Amino acid sequence: MTQPVRAALLALPLLAVAASPPPPKVPTSAEIVAGAPASAWAAVPAQDLLVIDLDNGRRVAIALMPAFVPVHVANIRALARAGWFGGTTINRVQDNYVTQWGDATGKKQLPPGIVAPSPAEYERPLAGLAFRAMPYRDAYAAGAGHVGGWPVASDGRLAWLTHCYAMVGVGRGLAPDTGTGAELYAVIGHAPRHLDRNIATVGRVLEGMDALTDLPRGTEALGFYSAGASRPTIRAARLAADMPAGARPAFEIMKSDAAAFAAWVKARANRKDEFFIRPAGAVDICNALPPARAKPAE
Amino acid sequence: MTQPVRAALLALPLLAVAASPPPPKVPTSAEIVAGAPASAWAAVPAQDLLVIDLDNGRRVAIALMPAFVPVHVANIRALARAGWFGGTTINRVQDNYVTQWGDATGKKQLPPGIVAPSPAEYERPLAGLAFRAMPYRDAYAAGAGHVGGWPVASDGRLAWLTHCYAMVGVGRGLAPDTGTGAELYAVIGHAPRHLDRNIATVGRVLEGMDALTDLPRGTEALGFYSAGASRPTIRAARLAADMPAGARPAFEIMKSDAAAFAAWVKARANRKDEFFIRPAGAVDICNALPPARAKPAE
Repeated sequence: MTQPVRAALLALPLLAVAASPPPPKVPTSAEIVAGAPASAWAAVPAQDLLVIDLDNGRRVAIALMPAFVPVHVANIRALARAGWFGGTTINRVQDNYVTQWGDATGKKQLPPGIVAPSPAEYERPLAGLAFRAMPYRDAYAAGAGHVGGWPVASDGRLAWLTHCYAMVGVGRGLAPDTGTGAELYAVIGHAPRHLDRNIATVGRVLEGMDALTDLPRGTEALGFYSAGASRPTIRAARLAADMPAGARPAFEIMKSDAAAFAAWVKARANRKDEFFIRPAGAVDICNALPPARAKPAE
Repeated sequence: MTQPVRAALLALPLLAVAASPPPPKVPTSAEIVAGAPASAWAAVPAQDLLVIDLDNGRRVAIALMPAFVPVHVANIRALARAGWFGGTTINRVQDNYVTQWGDATGKKQLPPGIVAPSPAEYERPLAGLAFRAMPYRDAYAAGAGHVGGWPVASDGRLAWLTHCYAMVGVGRGLAPDTGTGAELYAVIGHAPRHLDRNIATVGRVLEGMDALTDLPRGTEALGFYSAGASRPTIRAARLAADMPAGARPAFEIMKSDAAAFAAWVKARANRKDEFFIRPAGAVDICNALPPARAKPAE
């Protein structure tokens, strides 16, 4: 519709066109991110950043969300601090679903201090959360929006982190209290929102998604690698807080209550530029993961 | 919640438990697909199946949807029949977005018979379509559902194919009538539904998604490969109808008006089994791409 709009402008009386300034250009979502003030960003705390180094030289950095899932995150921190993930492997790559890593033998002893998590952590009371609902429909919940830089859905009473592309969850067995954090997965396909409230979502990959997505898909059921299949090994998985100063990766996420963030959501929902001829007028929560950016190493 | 439910059953008077048959097991979506009668399936016509063979030995098979986008599909057929895609390459792999292929030089002459497509094909009147709306909210449109085995959204007046994982579209320049079919892309991430009605969706990958998803992501802007980057070359892209009898791949898609399909959608929206403790009660259109299956080569 770019052309018809331009034609309509040309059809205005010449004097009116000459007297009117050009309509203000609406900034794109990328321009809003680039222009956001420093106050619009919040640093990811170093104790909430899990840094996984693979033996192929690639790095995956995951922000954790302790305020929603404190026991799950405490377990993951304990595993990282014990060096437990070292030597474990990526064992499952199921197309349009998840990449999952952990102990392929299932026999590696967990370190002390791992607590059986409660499925109560799958969701929490909405009251008291600074929930900024987006003014758009959600396909799965009464509403969706953001809390402290995280994607959240709610039924009006409870709220939970959403299973979006790049979000990280804790694998579990059939019983809902069996997810120790020793098996983690990242979503690598269309958001499997049916997992919401059925399993703990604990984090978001901020760096290195391609190290989890460009892998061969597993050939066994559920995308598990066959016994002899080559797979990346985790050299080390550490909290940034436990890495040497000067070598810690660091990230910022845009604050959910920043004016720039509200403008960014609106721009995402209403793309109109040289390419987009028909704005959607909506954006789903998984196309609205808050902007994140690397900072210089600390 | 599996455990509490079981506990409640055990608390019933013993006689009542003994007298009651076990509750009928609700079939899973996989069981519904496995048990669907032959009449629930429709063959993909051989002239609507684009078979792409890569020089790495991998194959991608794409069902085309001429009823929605006749000019775009006619162009793709003409390109395939001219052998035009042979020697072109995969040039763009943008994480959580698209894998795109075509002529990296931009100079390869198109064969005769390629028609400038109208953006009118981005959508079509709902009236006259056998649209089966799903009884769930859609984040982007007034409703979503299926037409003839394809995912479709509608505003009540117009209908369009949705940009879901594994759907294939026609790249274009800034002008909306510039998508000749010589540049095609497949969605490899969360559904970019903002592309709906802005670009032509023409098909769906039925085989070989992993050949498009496990590739290194491109390092240039928009995920394009840098000039010297290694990339798969298309050895041949043919319509199945033009392949030798006996060597044609063949696929079936479940019919949108089959009873098994309605049951399948319902089961996808209400997963409840040994693992799922809280059914979503909804499913979004991109988690409800109709079941498809390979048939023996024809």
